[in-house]
Amino acid sequence: MRHPPIHPSLGSILHGGDYNPDQWLDRPDVLEADTRLMRLAGVNVATVGVFAWATLEPEEGVYRFDWLDETFDRLHRAGVRIVLATPTGAKPAWMSHKYPEIRRCGPDGRREPHGFRHNHCWTSPIYRARAREINSRLAERYGNHPALVLWHLSNEYGGYCHCPLCMEAFQGWLRRRYETLDALDKAWWTRFWSHTFTDWRQIDFIDPTIPAMVVDWKRFTTDQCVDFMLAEIEPLRRITPDIPLTHNMMGTYEPLDYWRLAPHLDRVSWDAYPSWHSEPEHRTAAHTAFHCDMYRAMKGGRPWILMESTPSRVNWQKVCRSKKPGMHRLASLQAVAHGSDAVMYFQWRAGRGGAEKYHGAVVDHNAHEHTRVFRDVAQVGADLKRLERVIGTSTAADVAVVYDWECRWAYEAAQGFRADPNDYPATVIGFYRALWKRGVSVDVINADQDFSRYRMVVAPMLYMLRPGLAERIDRFVEEGGVFVGSYLSGLVDENDLCFQGGFPGPLRQTLGVVAEEIDILYDHDRQSVSAQPDNPLGLEGSFAATRYCELIRPEGAQVVGSYDADFYAGTPALTVNRRGRGEAWYLGARLEERFQDEMLGRLAGRLGVRRAVDADLPEGVSAAVRTDGERSYLFLMNFTPHPQRVRTAPGTVLLGNAPTDGDLELLPWGAAVVEQAR
Amino acid sequence: MRHPPIHPSLGSILHGGDYNPDQWLDRPDVLEADTRLMRLAGVNVATVGVFAWATLEPEEGVYRFDWLDETFDRLHRAGVRIVLATPTGAKPAWMSHKYPEIRRCGPDGRREPHGFRHNHCWTSPIYRARAREINSRLAERYGNHPALVLWHLSNEYGGYCHCPLCMEAFQGWLRRRYETLDALDKAWWTRFWSHTFTDWRQIDFIDPTIPAMVVDWKRFTTDQCVDFMLAEIEPLRRITPDIPLTHNMMGTYEPLDYWRLAPHLDRVSWDAYPSWHSEPEHRTAAHTAFHCDMYRAMKGGRPWILMESTPSRVNWQKVCRSKKPGMHRLASLQAVAHGSDAVMYFQWRAGRGGAEKYHGAVVDHNAHEHTRVFRDVAQVGADLKRLERVIGTSTAADVAVVYDWECRWAYEAAQGFRADPNDYPATVIGFYRALWKRGVSVDVINADQDFSRYRMVVAPMLYMLRPGLAERIDRFVEEGGVFVGSYLSGLVDENDLCFQGGFPGPLRQTLGVVAEEIDILYDHDRQSVSAQPDNPLGLEGSFAATRYCELIRPEGAQVVGSYDADFYAGTPALTVNRRGRGEAWYLGARLEERFQDEMLGRLAGRLGVRRAVDADLPEGVSAAVRTDGERSYLFLMNFTPHPQRVRTAPGTVLLGNAPTDGDLELLPWGAAVVEQAR
Amino acid sequence: MRHPPIHPSLGSILHGGDYNPDQWLDRPDVLEADTRLMRLAGVNVATVGVFAWATLEPEEGVYRFDWLDETFDRLHRAGVRIVLATPTGAKPAWMSHKYPEIRRCGPDGRREPHGFRHNHCWTSPIYRARAREINSRLAERYGNHPALVLWHLSNEYGGYCHCPLCMEAFQGWLRRRYETLDALDKAWWTRFWSHTFTDWRQIDFIDPTIPAMVVDWKRFTTDQCVDFMLAEIEPLRRITPDIPLTHNMMGTYEPLDYWRLAPHLDRVSWDAYPSWHSEPEHRTAAHTAFHCDMYRAMKGGRPWILMESTPSRVNWQKVCRSKKPGMHRLASLQAVAHGSDAVMYFQWRAGRGGAEKYHGAVVDHNAHEHTRVFRDVAQVGADLKRLERVIGTSTAADVAVVYDWECRWAYEAAQGFRADPNDYPATVIGFYRALWKRGVSVDVINADQDFSRYRMVVAPMLYMLRPGLAERIDRFVEEGGVFVGSYLSGLVDENDLCFQGGFPGPLRQTLGVVAEEIDILYDHDRQSVSAQPDNPLGLEGSFAATRYCELIRPEGAQVVGSYDADFYAGTPALTVNRRGRGEAWYLGARLEERFQDEMLGRLAGRLGVRRAVDADLPEGVSAAVRTDGERSYLFLMNFTPHPQRVRTAPGTVLLGNAPTDGDLELLPWGAAVVEQAR
Repeated sequence: MRHPPIHPSLGSILHGGDYNPDQWLDRPDVLEADTRLMRLAGVNVATVGVFAWATLEPEEGVYRFDWLDETFDRLHRAGVRIVLATPTGAKPAWMSHKYPEIRRCGPDGRREPHGFRHNHCWTSPIYRARAREINSRLAERYGNHPALVLWHLSNEYGGYCHCPLCMEAFQGWLRRRYETLDALDKAWWTRFWSHTFTDWRQIDFIDPTIPAMVVDWKRFTTDQCVDFMLAEIEPLRRITPDIPLTHNMMGTYEPLDYWRLAPHLDRVSWDAYPSWHSEPEHRTAAHTAFHCDMYRAMKGGRPWILMESTPSRVNWQKVCRSKKPGMHRLASLQAVAHGSDAVMYFQWRAGRGGAEKYHGAVVDHNAHEHTRVFRDVAQVGADLKRLERVIGTSTAADVAVVYDWECRWAYEAAQGFRADPNDYPATVIGFYRALWKRGVSVDVINADQDFSRYRMVVAPMLYMLRPGLAERIDRFVEEGGVFVGSYLSGLVDENDLCFQGGFPGPLRQTLGVVAEEIDILYDHDRQSVSAQPDNPLGLEGSFAATRYCELIRPEGAQVVGSYDADFYAGTPALTVNRRGRGEAWYLGARLEERFQDEMLGRLAGRLGVRRAVDADLPEGVSAAVRTDGERSYLFLMNFTPHPQRVRTAPGTVLLGNAPTDGDLELLPWGAAVVEQAR
Repeated sequence: MRHPPIHPSLGSILHGGDYNPDQWLDRPDVLEADTRLMRLAGVNVATVGVFAWATLEPEEGVYRFDWLDETFDRLHRAGVRIVLATPTGAKPAWMSHKYPEIRRCGPDGRREPHGFRHNHCWTSPIYRARAREINSRLAERYGNHPALVLWHLSNEYGGYCHCPLCMEAFQGWLRRRYETLDALDKAWWTRFWSHTFTDWRQIDFIDPTIPAMVVDWKRFTTDQCVDFMLAEIEPLRRITPDIPLTHNMMGTYEPLDYWRLAPHLDRVSWDAYPSWHSEPEHRTAAHTAFHCDMYRAMKGGRPWILMESTPSRVNWQKVCRSKKPGMHRLASLQAVAHGSDAVMYFQWRAGRGGAEKYHGAVVDHNAHEHTRVFRDVAQVGADLKRLERVIGTSTAADVAVVYDWECRWAYEAAQGFRADPNDYPATVIGFYRALWKRGVSVDVINADQDFSRYRMVVAPMLYMLRPGLAERIDRFVEEGGVFVGSYLSGLVDENDLCFQGGFPGPLRQTLGVVAEEIDILYDHDRQSVSAQPDNPLGLEGSFAATRYCELIRPEGAQVVGSYDADFYAGTPALTVNRRGRGEAWYLGARLEERFQDEMLGRLAGRLGVRRAVDADLPEGVSAAVRTDGERSYLFLMNFTPHPQRVRTAPGTVLLGNAPTDGDLELLPWGAAVVEQAR
Repeated sequence: MRHPPIHPSLGSILHGGDYNPDQWLDRPDVLEADTRLMRLAGVNVATVGVFAWATLEPEEGVYRFDWLDETFDRLHRAGVRIVLATPTGAKPAWMSHKYPEIRRCGPDGRREPHGFRHNHCWTSPIYRARAREINSRLAERYGNHPALVLWHLSNEYGGYCHCPLCMEAFQGWLRRRYETLDALDKAWWTRFWSHTFTDWRQIDFIDPTIPAMVVDWKRFTTDQCVDFMLAEIEPLRRITPDIPLTHNMMGTYEPLDYWRLAPHLDRVSWDAYPSWHSEPEHRTAAHTAFHCDMYRAMKGGRPWILMESTPSRVNWQKVCRSKKPGMHRLASLQAVAHGSDAVMYFQWRAGRGGAEKYHGAVVDHNAHEHTRVFRDVAQVGADLKRLERVIGTSTAADVAVVYDWECRWAYEAAQGFRADPNDYPATVIGFYRALWKRGVSVDVINADQDFSRYRMVVAPMLYMLRPGLAERIDRFVEEGGVFVGSYLSGLVDENDLCFQGGFPGPLRQTLGVVAEEIDILYDHDRQSVSAQPDNPLGLEGSFAATRYCELIRPEGAQVVGSYDADFYAGTPALTVNRRGRGEAWYLGARLEERFQDEMLGRLAGRLGVRRAVDADLPEGVSAAVRTDGERSYLFLMNFTPHPQRVRTAPGTVLLGNAPTDGDLELLPWGAAVVEQAR
């Protein structure tokens, strides 16, 4: 099956990026040069209008579209298609001063000054009205322009607002969720510390000592963001029903559960800014691939859009290292390999001033094409042209890894384990990496998705079990699936209330264990776990354990590994429970990376799940595949500074060296794409 | 001499803890299970009502006591006595919203939102009136209930409030202290930086650049806390004159000088949450023992109450490690060994939600008794039953270590040495540890206490000398006492004004030295001090010095040790001054731990001060003794993971193995209690 | 040429310091002792009245001068001259409370409480009026007193105020600078993030995401400081036209561009508080010398005033280490060597209370002269008497090092390289140090100064090029000068807008290079640069590169060194461009210290620029010279704990040991001064 292109008129992988002619209106020579340079760079699309509100509407009700008209026409003449942004990512200064309510308030209720960006109140009726108005006018004016292929909603929605309007909206949201204060007080366990609310209006401060309130506040924030987004969307859908919509997201950005935005969008996009070269590149690559596989899964396999990336430096990192030669091409192909039908940049041309003037751009301050970065971009443009047959293909995965925003919110709101920020995502990505190393095709999903399409579901630290989840996991196992869970699973219900009677709560029966106690280790503590003889995976030897050591009591599960020392010597640490036609694994301890590699690798091997290539990959080499069911496109990527060889099935080499004796050689930071019969 | 029990009706060591049935009112099965489990755990007391205000008074003037009535009766039927808390530790939300004045203001004068806990204004007349009212009603309703044995005032008083009412109260407090602004301006040395106050109302901000103001602000805060506590106490004393009162304190919590609260209480309590296993356990043990010995001394030897502790994890530490098997019993016995007649927990049953749902509880989320933690607690319950003869006994110490809140406040308000937080307590505890290692019985006192009952007084970093203190120390020495002082002593008077003419100011004559200069070392600097030949303690060799090196000029004192290098090579670093029948030691440098062990050990040995056991203790083994003058109870505690042997005098072994050949063997993390004739 | 003395009546190097009799008015014995002790210490000057406003004007319009009258007379009788401070460094409490507008507002617009110091609003008309009034009265009363030799304006001007008055003043300042909002919007590149301003009143918050705004805000702050200072000066100049004026500055204090204050002052002063002994002392010495050479250059070589220093500890450092014996004398002579005609202290006598009671003072809390510190000070007093012939002499430098406040502001406002605070000053000082090690006489100047008087100008990281600067550098080179530039030069114009077409922008032609790209390294990254064979400086071997690696393309310049590895192996890293009669060097990478030493050392050697002494100096020994054109005064300073020898030309030894065989021996931390014929 092949997904349709992003817009019916598009036959190429999108290549382009944010383009801000509004910053150069007094420089017609620059605008003219842009089209020439775009042609040289193989650019076929430009995102315009992001942050252009002050230019489009310099004072209330006064609109200025002339420059945008010209931009549309100029780009159209040059064969460049347009992604048009709604300008709501930054509010004009006149609006902030005329209508203070559109500015956010901080956690302490203080109104923020104008400035920065991405900081308008999502609740403000005035901001919504102004947004609806400008969006309508843009849709009316450009909806029929042949260059227009996509709407780009605002920019990187994010943050929180604690203004009176938002707090009132939160009260209303809670009233709808809980109906009575008594129900809320029970769910939030407010008798603790005398936190009982007796009037909805008392809920005017997000108290970090009520963790369930914090979780609900984050749910509300996502809902309020969706609500604002829908208000932005309404005129667009109405006036331009045929133009698809997207929004550019930010990896696993903690404050917003993107799974709740995605259904309202035709495509999901994300802005990828890995810190290449800050660690061994293959670690960065696995981390990035994880996000790609999530965005692909978020729309059921439909190709996503790499909306922003940089061909060189990210200006806001602590150390703004350049991408080495080849790294930009490799990173761009990785996005395509994992499901993007686009490689786009922030931004096309570096601005002379402003906060991001040193952010890597296609055209930098040299202002010409004779730079390494420009040549790298043009190379990507040429490569993408050779990959047009990939458009619309996707990846079918037998394995899913669960990354769940609400699990993270609830776990991070809790005190009682270790004060490690980002431990949930790091853990999930650690499990993912073991699969990535083997070239296993993986969907990264949240806990609400249908598991029945997978053969293995890996869900570490599944801290919160929303209603029905345990049952769905159980059915998945009963019907033959392999489920892999870990320590710190099944602690709380959807209201952040601890399950009683033993963790992992409603998953006990499925996993066949109860986690009686958890020992939290200091950084200097080390434990270890040894595999049982004759265990079903053939694991051998002992593995170092850090941070978390749960003491498991089997209730039907088979013990696969046990602790070696301390007062829990001999206590189970790894179990498998056979149930129905499937099995459920439980890992009680944070074990070293080698363990995850062996365990998940062997499980995947035993199951024979789909992999991109049927061979062991050298360390640092990644493989991914896209397919339309008939033909498949194998991407081989070398995230090391050394040449590497991979044995592959025969096919047509679209990119890279032709194979020798069945071995494909990859240059340092090199990549190859091979079209193969399926 | 034997002190009376906490309440005449009590014949057991208290064993129990915070119990919050108000969180489980919709779960009668849970409430029923509680009494069954309490019996299994050997629990004989429960603290109820902490933070229950919102349940007791859900709206202003509407009271709901039914659940508490039932709790009293249910526990009474189960033979469990009740410690009843006043509920003022957390204010109800309705009160915060109706009366904003009860919420505190931060240092910048901003009113805090409702939320958190322990944050009501102590000055607010409204809060005091509401507290007085609820306390009266509790006293009237439960004062005659046979289960009631103790009042628990509020919970862990703490923090600061900078609201207008508090600032006005501070102005009034200052007016009473100084009478005139001129006196205040002199005491605060306000001519510096033009800080002169010319109207009391100008004193509306605690300026950290006026250190004397900071010290007075902390004095005022303690006084205001006492004043609020007395307002809480008034109806209780009036209505229930026979029920004793306590308040649960927090170690050496910096903001409150607990010595000023203690006289108003019948018993002192404290909440002990050491970070076991984060460092060698015997270090944690010495640190904890220090606090125990302070709380015992604070009420003249009367047994104190371990009001809170956890049988497993402390949920708010950075790493929430579990107590290893045996550690809970050992820690509990340590409290009794150092004077507690109670071992109590926060909390009995873990709540399903809220900030501390993962705080170690007797009944955790497994919700049954078949856990290691529950068994550990039940073991403690059984052990405590075997120690009933210990009740009311205490410890007589010949040695006192001085820990003085005002010294700490003044030292920490000063700039001029090193920006090390907690240096004062760490230093005092370092000296204490040397004595603890030898099993010396020690009282930890503040500088206002009577020294004449001791043979040795150790007072390191006695930075502030309040009026009369130097004279009392001098008399103590003249009359035969041994005084040990150190660097950074005698710098300021009670108004934080530096003494003129040479430090340690009024202690110069007693110590026979003047500290002419102090060299403050960087972390990378090392100095050393060598013992003089033929010194009175037989010290030998050289000791590393860090951080502080005072240059001493003897004025009558004998030099015992001198610096080895740098421009102060040969300058005295350790002296002793013989005066009257006693002697006064002065240590000019921060020396390595080995030095303190040798110096204080030899001094104690020479003086023949009381020790728990007349033997050298293996490293990590601690000994403490309680006595009624006729019989004594020797506690031996092994804070190591290895078995240890200690030679002891014969006696009746109440806990632990019987001795072999006069040697008592302690298991890893094990303890023994021996009753001996005195 | 010899500059006049600070005041015609002065024939000695000033020796004295801040003197605060207002803190001791109730202690006539102390005031009496002061004059005796001053005589013993060789003190000839006292700065009085700093922070005395609350004493001088205890309530509005009520003045109290009696104590100051007596101070003038008492000091005058003792032969001590007076530097009189205006008291505006700290506002009286009554004024803060009566006129809240004089208190500053923070970046969020909140009014600060009274307290601290140095925090009055420079814009407030009320504060200006009060300042003008008290200054007038001081000038009228003491202007003719024979003891008065100098006005000391306020104290250490600093900080920012964001109050409505200041924001309005900033708007006016911008209006004058840009005339139209359109010009401002262009200069600030406000189209980015929709930051366009459409009304001057919208500019009410300093948005850190508009870097050009941040730079202008700092320019404005300096201008507003100057404006306030001129308001302070006006009555002084009018009433006491013959009394010179100074202000005590703080090294390279980032918020104020001292070059814009200096023209309004007769002398510049600075307060030197190096952290002696925290690192090898010669590094601290080079750092301090750098500042000295800037203050000397700031008034065209006119001797400056060391207004504050400490003879022992600085109380506000993280570790307040004492100066070792000899260090105070050495540091004091270093100031004189680099152009000071004064050695003064904060403070004469330590106050008994207040924030700085432990700041090293001449008379400490011992309150007598029998201290090491007092003896050290008296030694300096005696030494300075022997150096009276040095007064008014200065240093002629052939080399200038450029340290430019606006470069720093713009660089630090930018994101895109590395988040290293203080990287600009550390870099400039690193280049300076290479020259200091060789005893080269250096002026530290800003980029506006006349280069034609120098033979070599070293201007690393010349990030901002204001109009005309590139032309002036080019002319300097054309006319025979040697210019040394580095990475990160010529990126932005005076409005913080990036130059287009290739960095270093308008300096490309002069330097003969274009910096095509910059690679920013992580801390763990290392590159290296090797010298080309037969390069003009005879450099050999390879040098480690860290942090910054620019990739240079020569456009006429000769390649002197190239990168060794990575994708830029062989790319030039060091070039020289011969142009006209001079040459322009460009260093593309941050190289190790050894490289700077070799490169600048060889350049200086080849040019034969003036050095203090014609010999290689041992590591840690510094040489500086002052001259009146006829006689010169060579200062040799040993910043090591070992004796050192230096070969010098013959002369009269004013301080130090007589030379042996032409070699002058310096004791550990020792110094010598030799008068030589020029």
